[in-house]
Amino acid sequence: GRVLVKNPHLDLMEEDVLYHLDLGTKTHNLPAMFGDIKFVCVGGSPNRMRAFAQFMQRELGLAGAGEDVADICAGSDRYAMYRAGPVLSISHGMGIPSISIMLHELIKLLHHAKCRDVTIIRIGTSGGLGIEAGSVVITDTAVDSSFQPRFEQVVLGDVVVRSTELDKDLAEELLACSRDIPDFPTLIGHTMCTYDFYEGQGRLDGALCSFSSEKKLEYLRRAYDAGVRNIEMESTAFAALCGLCGLKGES
Amino acid sequence: GRVLVKNPHLDLMEEDVLYHLDLGTKTHNLPAMFGDIKFVCVGGSPNRMRAFAQFMQRELGLAGAGEDVADICAGSDRYAMYRAGPVLSISHGMGIPSISIMLHELIKLLHHAKCRDVTIIRIGTSGGLGIEAGSVVITDTAVDSSFQPRFEQVVLGDVVVRSTELDKDLAEELLACSRDIPDFPTLIGHTMCTYDFYEGQGRLDGALCSFSSEKKLEYLRRAYDAGVRNIEMESTAFAALCGLCGLKGES
Repeated sequence: GRVLVKNPHLDLMEEDVLYHLDLGTKTHNLPAMFGDIKFVCVGGSPNRMRAFAQFMQRELGLAGAGEDVADICAGSDRYAMYRAGPVLSISHGMGIPSISIMLHELIKLLHHAKCRDVTIIRIGTSGGLGIEAGSVVITDTAVDSSFQPRFEQVVLGDVVVRSTELDKDLAEELLACSRDIPDFPTLIGHTMCTYDFYEGQGRLDGALCSFSSEKKLEYLRRAYDAGVRNIEMESTAFAALCGLCGLKGES
Repeated sequence: GRVLVKNPHLDLMEEDVLYHLDLGTKTHNLPAMFGDIKFVCVGGSPNRMRAFAQFMQRELGLAGAGEDVADICAGSDRYAMYRAGPVLSISHGMGIPSISIMLHELIKLLHHAKCRDVTIIRIGTSGGLGIEAGSVVITDTAVDSSFQPRFEQVVLGDVVVRSTELDKDLAEELLACSRDIPDFPTLIGHTMCTYDFYEGQGRLDGALCSFSSEKKLEYLRRAYDAGVRNIEMESTAFAALCGLCGLKGES
C-alpha cells in the first residue's frame, strides 16, 4: 500500500526539494505533516480547491470548520495545497505539463511521508459530450485526441507510451455514492484529454480557427462513438502517473 | 500593425467572452481599457508578473509607482494581469496548454481593443545549457524536444505543424540593450521547449526516472550541439501563436 517512486537516484540524494510545492525533506518533517493522509483531491483552480477543503472540513465535522484554511504551499504561487483531516486538496493549474510537475512532487511527498493506501481523485469542470448539462462523468479510461487509451511521454527526446486505465472498482464505488444524491446525473465513460482548449477541442471561438462547424461536429461525433463522454486537459497524464506509482486513482 | 485573429466565426458572434481572463466584449469597453497597449510581457508566476508591473511603474516614472497594482483578471484565478502605462504584464502558468489558453484570449483582447504595433516578450526562468549561471538567453528560434523548429498543434485530432521563428530584429535590439547593463551575461540562442519538467528535461529527481546520469548528459550534449542554450516549457507555442497573429514576439 506504499506510494511508489520509480527512480533509483532518489535514494542517493541527501535532500529532496519539492521546489514547486515549497516543501522539502530537510526543511519539513513530511511524515509528521502528511503521514496520515488517505485521500488526495486535485483540481485546476486554487480558489476551488480551497473551497473544497472547507467543504470537506464541514462534511467531516472537523474542528475549525467554517474558518479559513491555510495554504501549505503559500511560499510558492505555482500550486495551492490545503488539508482537511485525512484529505489533501491541491490545485494543479491547466494542462498536462502543469499537472505533471505537481504529481511528480506530490508522489515524492507521499512517499517521503510514508503514506499508505492513498486514493487520489481529480475533480474539475470538463466539456460534456452528448450528455445532460451538469452531469458528472466518472472516467473508466482516459483517451488521447485520437481516442486511444495511451499517454505519450517524451523521455530524453524519445516517445514512451503509457497506459491510462483508472481504477474500475473505485469508479463503481463513486457511481454507487452518486445514487444516494438525487438530481445529480452521473455516469461512467471515457474522458478525452487534449493539449489545447480551442483548436484541440473543436471550439469555434479561439484566436485561430480553420475548421467549419460541420467538421467540428463530425469530430465530436466520432469521439462520442468511441465512448468519450467528456473532454478536459489532464486525465491521460494523471492516469499514467498514478498507475505507475501505486496510487488508486479516479478522475 | 493590427493584431490579427484568423477565425471567420468571430465576426458572427454577438459577444466574445474571454472566459479565463474574466473579460468580455459586452461586459468591458476593451478599446478604452487596452487600446493604447504597446508592450505585453508574459511569464509563468502571478507574483512575479505583479512585481514586474510594479518595476515597470517605477522605471516609467508613472503616477502611483510604489503602490500596489490591481489584478485586472481578479475575478478569475487562472491568470493574473497587471498594467503599467503602455505595458501589460500577464501570468500564463506552466506549460504549453496553459500559455495557449491565455494567448488565444490575449490575442482576441488586443484585436477587440484595436491595438496596433504590439510587441510581446516572454520573460521567465529556464534551465541554461553550457552557459554561465544567471545568463539571459534571447531566443532566435524555439525548438521541440527533437531540436526541430516546429510546433505540432493537434486540430480536431490531426497534427498541424507550425513555424517557431521569433523576431530576429527584436532579438538583436534586446541584445543591444543588454550591452548597457554591466555584469549581465546575455546571448542569443535556440530555446528548447518540452512538455515535461522531470523526464522530458532529463532531471534525475522526479518520481519516475528510467535513465542514467550518462544518458541524460548525452541528450543535453546533443541539444547543445544543435544550438540549444536553454530549456523551458512554453516557447514553441508562444512563437507559433504570436507569429500567426501578427505579434512581434521574443522569448
